[in-house]
Amino acid sequence: MIKKTNNHFYDNFEFNSVSAEIKYKNRDDFALIFSKKPCNAAAVFTKNLVKASPLKVSSANIKNKIRAVLVNSGNANAATGTQGMENALKLNQVLSEKLNIPSGSILQCSTGVIGIQLPVEKMINSLPALVEGKNPDKADFFSKAIMTTDTFNKISTYEFSHDNINYRVTGIAKGAGMIAPDMATLLAFILTDFPVSPDKMDTIFRAAADSTLNAITVDGDTSTNDTAILLSPENDSYFIDDNDLSLFREALTAVMSDLAYMLIKDAEGATKCVKISCINAKSENDARLCSRAIAQSMLVKTAIFGEDPNWGRIACAAGYSGADFNPDNISISFNNIVLLDKGSPLGHNIIEAEKVIKNSEYTITIDLNEGNFNWTFLTSDLSYDYVKINAEYTT
Amino acid sequence: MIKKTNNHFYDNFEFNSVSAEIKYKNRDDFALIFSKKPCNAAAVFTKNLVKASPLKVSSANIKNKIRAVLVNSGNANAATGTQGMENALKLNQVLSEKLNIPSGSILQCSTGVIGIQLPVEKMINSLPALVEGKNPDKADFFSKAIMTTDTFNKISTYEFSHDNINYRVTGIAKGAGMIAPDMATLLAFILTDFPVSPDKMDTIFRAAADSTLNAITVDGDTSTNDTAILLSPENDSYFIDDNDLSLFREALTAVMSDLAYMLIKDAEGATKCVKISCINAKSENDARLCSRAIAQSMLVKTAIFGEDPNWGRIACAAGYSGADFNPDNISISFNNIVLLDKGSPLGHNIIEAEKVIKNSEYTITIDLNEGNFNWTFLTSDLSYDYVKINAEYTT
Repeated sequence: MIKKTNNHFYDNFEFNSVSAEIKYKNRDDFALIFSKKPCNAAAVFTKNLVKASPLKVSSANIKNKIRAVLVNSGNANAATGTQGMENALKLNQVLSEKLNIPSGSILQCSTGVIGIQLPVEKMINSLPALVEGKNPDKADFFSKAIMTTDTFNKISTYEFSHDNINYRVTGIAKGAGMIAPDMATLLAFILTDFPVSPDKMDTIFRAAADSTLNAITVDGDTSTNDTAILLSPENDSYFIDDNDLSLFREALTAVMSDLAYMLIKDAEGATKCVKISCINAKSENDARLCSRAIAQSMLVKTAIFGEDPNWGRIACAAGYSGADFNPDNISISFNNIVLLDKGSPLGHNIIEAEKVIKNSEYTITIDLNEGNFNWTFLTSDLSYDYVKINAEYTT
Repeated sequence: MIKKTNNHFYDNFEFNSVSAEIKYKNRDDFALIFSKKPCNAAAVFTKNLVKASPLKVSSANIKNKIRAVLVNSGNANAATGTQGMENALKLNQVLSEKLNIPSGSILQCSTGVIGIQLPVEKMINSLPALVEGKNPDKADFFSKAIMTTDTFNKISTYEFSHDNINYRVTGIAKGAGMIAPDMATLLAFILTDFPVSPDKMDTIFRAAADSTLNAITVDGDTSTNDTAILLSPENDSYFIDDNDLSLFREALTAVMSDLAYMLIKDAEGATKCVKISCINAKSENDARLCSRAIAQSMLVKTAIFGEDPNWGRIACAAGYSGADFNPDNISISFNNIVLLDKGSPLGHNIIEAEKVIKNSEYTITIDLNEGNFNWTFLTSDLSYDYVKINAEYTT
């Protein structure tokens, strides 16, 4: 059995954050995770062709044993050309000296505005304080320093017991805008003391990401900096059997689900957090295409904001999603209120559906009546504040 | 040479509109095009799986000789099940009797809210007046009656001379929201007196639609009712050679370009009309994918609204578009102001770019420096009013 806990403390992992005034004043924007032991690591990176320099560094190092993750907010160090890469490598080198660890054992993440060079001197000057103050108690500080337009920090820990030993999985993320399938400006750091087999880490991590961080959408824009990282310290022996891994899988998925939920709750301008569940599709891919198209539709998202149970827009988005189904057989409901029943509108249920859609959280289910594959996306609404945040600020 | 004209008058085509109070009060919402001669026809329909009943009727009849097009606004007659189809067929039958033409010679289009049954009795009661008042002078009335959230009616005519005979092409369209590649809630009716070969009509029409009506985007939502129709009266002989067809092609493309431009100018909530031009791509498909992803990006569209020359969001959208290119070689400019030059940001040009982006119309060019294929999309911005229109009204 897995259990949620507020205890984010590990003997092995240390955290810190400082203000390097990269973009913000009066808040921390430069953060570190340090691992006393070398870690096995897995990562999911953006599929965007335009990749930020720190992401290229992380991607090159991910197969190594990892000792540290260096993160900054306020500047993405993306589309910054040769100088951007030089800046990333410079930070890597100085940190490696300060911590006395191989430069190849450092992962780097940046998030913020694209196309502006990092204030690399200020950052280098801040590195000694960042390294000196590291402490196992400071996961919260780390989680706050990596925020951009996030309104709250995102951290979740689950614990479980296996062979009478207690283990934990902790996830820390930042999001807010540019959240789309295949990641987004989403940084997520998952730490565990469970000795998961290095051979299985990547597969397990990708599967967990698929149904959590890759099943949420705010604006459909996939960013240049998306990175999710899983770290687990080296051990003398590892769990490799599916039976031994099942609670770890469960805890990992629960942590990443929590992060996904918090990311949508805190989506830019969001007033609603809605589950879009496509059920009884012919294939998992159909279910995913269908729920994703509905979750991304600007017309559906504005209707959710306007508290209008406009199931026509939902049917329309399903229709262009690429999923294969017979439109005369589909059903659409808001929680348990059915508005379209196998192709026939149930107009008398509209008043009940209007009550459901006034909630800040509910589920829209589209039943394709074709097979037995399901997929769920989490989505936010499209509000005036989304426009305001993205029109008025360079992010 | 082709020439724009305000003369939309044809001997062959008659128009009318009446108020059937389908949804709106105090305005016409039911409209007719009548052709004295049977017409050869071509059409482009939505690719949405969820197709409105009138669209199914039109799609079944498009290969016949066409005499009439019946259009209503205020109700899409989509996702209305068996009764929706019965209503469409009932209107078809009554109109066919009133006009004394085969029921198979009638095309039908509806636009408006999805999932509500047509007030078919009111519409049938309005048909006599609709038929009786038809007149070659009433193209403007027709163009106004088909509007939904459009703020102005859209009509364009070009004329040209071939073998010393004058011909014309006239286009009438409605749009406003749900405008996306592969059509949208877009109805477009193109009429001509040019005897284009029936064998070539379809190909010529699709090619013209591809670079005009299919190269605009407002919200990326492809509707259930999209239809573009080309009508040309039967003749004793037809032009079939490319030389004979070239001015017709040119006029057709000019008319449909005008309609596309007007559709974006009148996009829901739009304050800007921006050309997104991807140049020097490896293939036409790459150029199209790239310009389309930028044109559809909510982050790009809010930046356009906020008058922020945020080229980072443009590079980012290009990166996830699926187009193949080397991010270190791309250039991005606002009109002639270059902000990214083969991967290097030109920060000193920002002030000039900020001037460009204050205009209501301008061009964003992304040069992939890979090959010699180009594609251009027209897009609008994402404003508070887009959210307002789509959150507050059931459309």
